[in-house]
Amino acid sequence: MIYYDYKQFCTDIQRLSQPCESFQADTVIAIARGGMTLGHALAMRLDIRNLQSIRVESYDADVQRNEVSILGQCDLSSSKRVLVVDDIVDSGQTLFALLPLLRSSHPHCEFRVATLFTKQTALVQPDFFLHEATEWIDFFWERDFLKSDSI
Amino acid sequence: MIYYDYKQFCTDIQRLSQPCESFQADTVIAIARGGMTLGHALAMRLDIRNLQSIRVESYDADVQRNEVSILGQCDLSSSKRVLVVDDIVDSGQTLFALLPLLRSSHPHCEFRVATLFTKQTALVQPDFFLHEATEWIDFFWERDFLKSDSI
Repeated sequence: MIYYDYKQFCTDIQRLSQPCESFQADTVIAIARGGMTLGHALAMRLDIRNLQSIRVESYDADVQRNEVSILGQCDLSSSKRVLVVDDIVDSGQTLFALLPLLRSSHPHCEFRVATLFTKQTALVQPDFFLHEATEWIDFFWERDFLKSDSI
Repeated sequence: MIYYDYKQFCTDIQRLSQPCESFQADTVIAIARGGMTLGHALAMRLDIRNLQSIRVESYDADVQRNEVSILGQCDLSSSKRVLVVDDIVDSGQTLFALLPLLRSSHPHCEFRVATLFTKQTALVQPDFFLHEATEWIDFFWERDFLKSDSI
């Protein structure tokens, strides 16, 4: 298990924002919950005021694979270039379900995906990412807010 | 100006979550952009999976007061107790516009508001808060992600 701390996150925001800048997004969609802090950070770094979120929940449908539910929707009526943000692409099932839905619902928009981590085995790869995940990542937002003795 | 850093934030999440717990929220709505990281943190701390966001933009309508636009909407069809989260209540105009709209659109829901800071002069006060703001607050998400030499 790797602990991914706030200091690393601040460094990574600088690094991840560089390739994202070329896309010139006007909107950030953070995938809740894992992508919320990253979405906030990238929206600040890239100076994008249109920051929204979407909920994606996965659940065990059978032993073979997880099912994914997309809950809520975004208002992209004034958007053209949308950066979808999540902490990690693990199985890729979230993006595999979400991206076709976003593209068909909002055909006037271009979409790109930015994450901190991805796995080689994922069904879908992000357009922009920094690290390959080879073991479990313990993100600071899954630890620091839960324990009073964490920092 | 006060610099509000990540370490203070982690301590404050513990403190702010305590009064929020009694409300037993099933949903967190983070007000974008300022409430996004706090919303994420409180949803993790309170173990609430239903985390959404809403955009509120204020603009100078005239010299007397700001106008507020609420952009997008939340899916509260399966929610009953909703915690609305923002970083600071400044003039209070955001909540003054947002809360009646949420209450009239979702009459089956109860709403409470949690923020880190508030001002005594605000039009509306949050139900749960920690600090009174007497000068400008420079939040870490408005600084750390913008400069490479910030930490």
